[in-house]
Amino acid sequence: MQHEPLHLDPGNLYTDKVGANGLSPECLNVLRPSLTAAHGAIHARVQSGELPFLRLHEDRATLDRVLEAASAARARFDDLVVLGIGGSSLGGRALIAALGGAGLRVHFPDNLDPDRFGALIDGLDLDRTQWNAISKSGGTLETIAQLLVVREQAAARLGGYGSLASRLVVTTDPQKGFLRRLARRDGLESFEVPPCVGGRFSVFTPVGLYPAAAAGVDLEGVFRGMAWAAERLASPDPAENPALAAAGLLYSLDVDKGRPVIATVPYADSLRATAEWFAQLWAESLGKAGRGPVPITAVGATDQHSQLQLWMEGPPNMVVAFIEVDRCDRAMPIPAADLGDDPDVAWMVGHDMGHILRMEKRGTAEALTRAGRPNLTWRMPAVTPESIGAWMLITQAMTAYAGGLYGVDPFDQPGVEAGKIIARRLLSQR
Amino acid sequence: MQHEPLHLDPGNLYTDKVGANGLSPECLNVLRPSLTAAHGAIHARVQSGELPFLRLHEDRATLDRVLEAASAARARFDDLVVLGIGGSSLGGRALIAALGGAGLRVHFPDNLDPDRFGALIDGLDLDRTQWNAISKSGGTLETIAQLLVVREQAAARLGGYGSLASRLVVTTDPQKGFLRRLARRDGLESFEVPPCVGGRFSVFTPVGLYPAAAAGVDLEGVFRGMAWAAERLASPDPAENPALAAAGLLYSLDVDKGRPVIATVPYADSLRATAEWFAQLWAESLGKAGRGPVPITAVGATDQHSQLQLWMEGPPNMVVAFIEVDRCDRAMPIPAADLGDDPDVAWMVGHDMGHILRMEKRGTAEALTRAGRPNLTWRMPAVTPESIGAWMLITQAMTAYAGGLYGVDPFDQPGVEAGKIIARRLLSQR
Repeated sequence: MQHEPLHLDPGNLYTDKVGANGLSPECLNVLRPSLTAAHGAIHARVQSGELPFLRLHEDRATLDRVLEAASAARARFDDLVVLGIGGSSLGGRALIAALGGAGLRVHFPDNLDPDRFGALIDGLDLDRTQWNAISKSGGTLETIAQLLVVREQAAARLGGYGSLASRLVVTTDPQKGFLRRLARRDGLESFEVPPCVGGRFSVFTPVGLYPAAAAGVDLEGVFRGMAWAAERLASPDPAENPALAAAGLLYSLDVDKGRPVIATVPYADSLRATAEWFAQLWAESLGKAGRGPVPITAVGATDQHSQLQLWMEGPPNMVVAFIEVDRCDRAMPIPAADLGDDPDVAWMVGHDMGHILRMEKRGTAEALTRAGRPNLTWRMPAVTPESIGAWMLITQAMTAYAGGLYGVDPFDQPGVEAGKIIARRLLSQR
Repeated sequence: MQHEPLHLDPGNLYTDKVGANGLSPECLNVLRPSLTAAHGAIHARVQSGELPFLRLHEDRATLDRVLEAASAARARFDDLVVLGIGGSSLGGRALIAALGGAGLRVHFPDNLDPDRFGALIDGLDLDRTQWNAISKSGGTLETIAQLLVVREQAAARLGGYGSLASRLVVTTDPQKGFLRRLARRDGLESFEVPPCVGGRFSVFTPVGLYPAAAAGVDLEGVFRGMAWAAERLASPDPAENPALAAAGLLYSLDVDKGRPVIATVPYADSLRATAEWFAQLWAESLGKAGRGPVPITAVGATDQHSQLQLWMEGPPNMVVAFIEVDRCDRAMPIPAADLGDDPDVAWMVGHDMGHILRMEKRGTAEALTRAGRPNLTWRMPAVTPESIGAWMLITQAMTAYAGGLYGVDPFDQPGVEAGKIIARRLLSQR
């Protein structure tokens, strides 16, 4: 019986399970000096306040403000639309997909696609809709373009640009940028993104917290999970700090064993967005200087029917990271009725659907292991706020530690500017 | 001006654009004997009837039956639930996401997750809901488990197991398996999956056609696109057959240039599911015998904010395949209102949102090219039935040709059985 909100089982990464494709049992000991250095470097900056992303659960004041604002919004609105893209959307979307309750319907257009964005706006009762424009810099192209269109719609359908002001919440830098200027000019409700927290590490700032609270996510539980995780993260010993162990193992599998591709595979539909959030975090933090791993996402059992063939017999460049959930919310036994004698039916009758799903995960993991394909499992007792809070903080720390191991800065993204500059030049050629 | 439904632009794969990371301009000529052999082997089997998946647009009788059944269903039902998983879901889902019109709401639970499946069933008016159980073999675990639960629900809420019979359509093998037995016993409406068409190549059989027709997809247009594509596929010359050219180029980039990872990146939200359908097709067909490429999916501009850093500066193991759409359905100019003087706003004002999206794609492609990162573009004049039909047939042929180049059978999936057997053993340990 597992009482902790999260447990890392890396057993199927080692040589005794997967043979020569696996890691030596001494792997983490050999890597110990690098792990200690990576841990020390990150946590020194956390302690100094330079990297607050691992201490956001201590910010009770922000949580209280978010909860209060969300409570007011739930009384007045039916829908919340998050105007943002990438890191401004993925964290909140993940929290809501996993944990969303009886709150507002929250929409993440997350792109500049006029067909989808237009269809979304058409279907809303603008009087009963709140908008949350989120951009750390305050100047993100897609976010501003979405906002300008929404202002025009509000003017047309609610009677004037001013009608949007009481329905618009801005989440951005405390001082700088277009959104902050607009908030000041129009007296908008606003939240701050701490300047030292990067976009992809911002899920536990109001960037992710406000939409989640509006959707009815139990953020108190999420913060308990973060606090539990933070205690583990304090240790520089990979036996006690699962983020440090996982960073070391995945790094070794890439660099020493030629396995840069990591597939994150939850066996729960509600965790698909969580896996997508992680893929973004891992890709943008570590993919630089011609190195870094390649994250992909999948969901079990669905993608047993699409990607499993590749994981089992494709090129030996992959690691599969499962997320196994011990208990689903809903019991759903498979009934037989008048079909129990059919041989294709009899063997599954009476089993719970969630139990079958778990056994499919275990069968897949065991088959991969027997085929010499390294895999690990994150286990959660259920999809709870505590487990999700813990996993999302642990994987953020894991990403930061991995930056140290790879020798890259996990907090920058120097490769994304060039395309923006070219796009802007193309647009100027009217 | 592009008049054809689909155009392949491989220019940014070559050395003159991306330097030493690229392919020689002679690449396809050098590969010509292998391409000719791969093309000849596949099309001989197509001609003989052994591989009908490239000639399904000639099956007018099936299309007529599907359209007639869907027309009747639209008069009687509001919702259609597809009971299936993997190849039985992905094709229909892709067609509907790209082209869905004013038809039934179609749901794809696509898993055994009791929380999501239960929530879906709870929300339906069972009297006005049709069910389409799809399994090529007729014995897929997940599909049967879903169906058994639905029968129980129908018995409880509609009054007896028999009440489901007139609301259930089965799509399966013409002769064998549990679903065919059930269809015979209960006199169910049914469609056939041709025995020689594999699950992941079945989108243009009733597996994908019936759900798409129910959703109001213009299948006549899709078939026109398939017919256009089939004319190109007839040629063994890669200059005339874009599927053959793309297969050769992607194979060379993997085997000769160490780039096994292929990211499919449409710049249209409605094509995300199409990219996911392709990932499944490519992964399960080619990932075997320790070889094969690793497909990942993304959507622009969204994933410029998550994966672009990796594509630009990560390990040199990737190729990006864009899908560029020349025209969105909806014009959505960016208005300025009272904010036109702000420097973060002024430069985008007056541009159409869809135009900005296209320029973002072009900026990204040019930035990748300048950074020496090979990329190609599939261009469509718009997201039309003709373009989607063409792309989905061309990429199926590309996959089949690539099987010949890699020396693997693209139509089997030997690696997916082991996990199923273990899961079934685990389940038997009550």
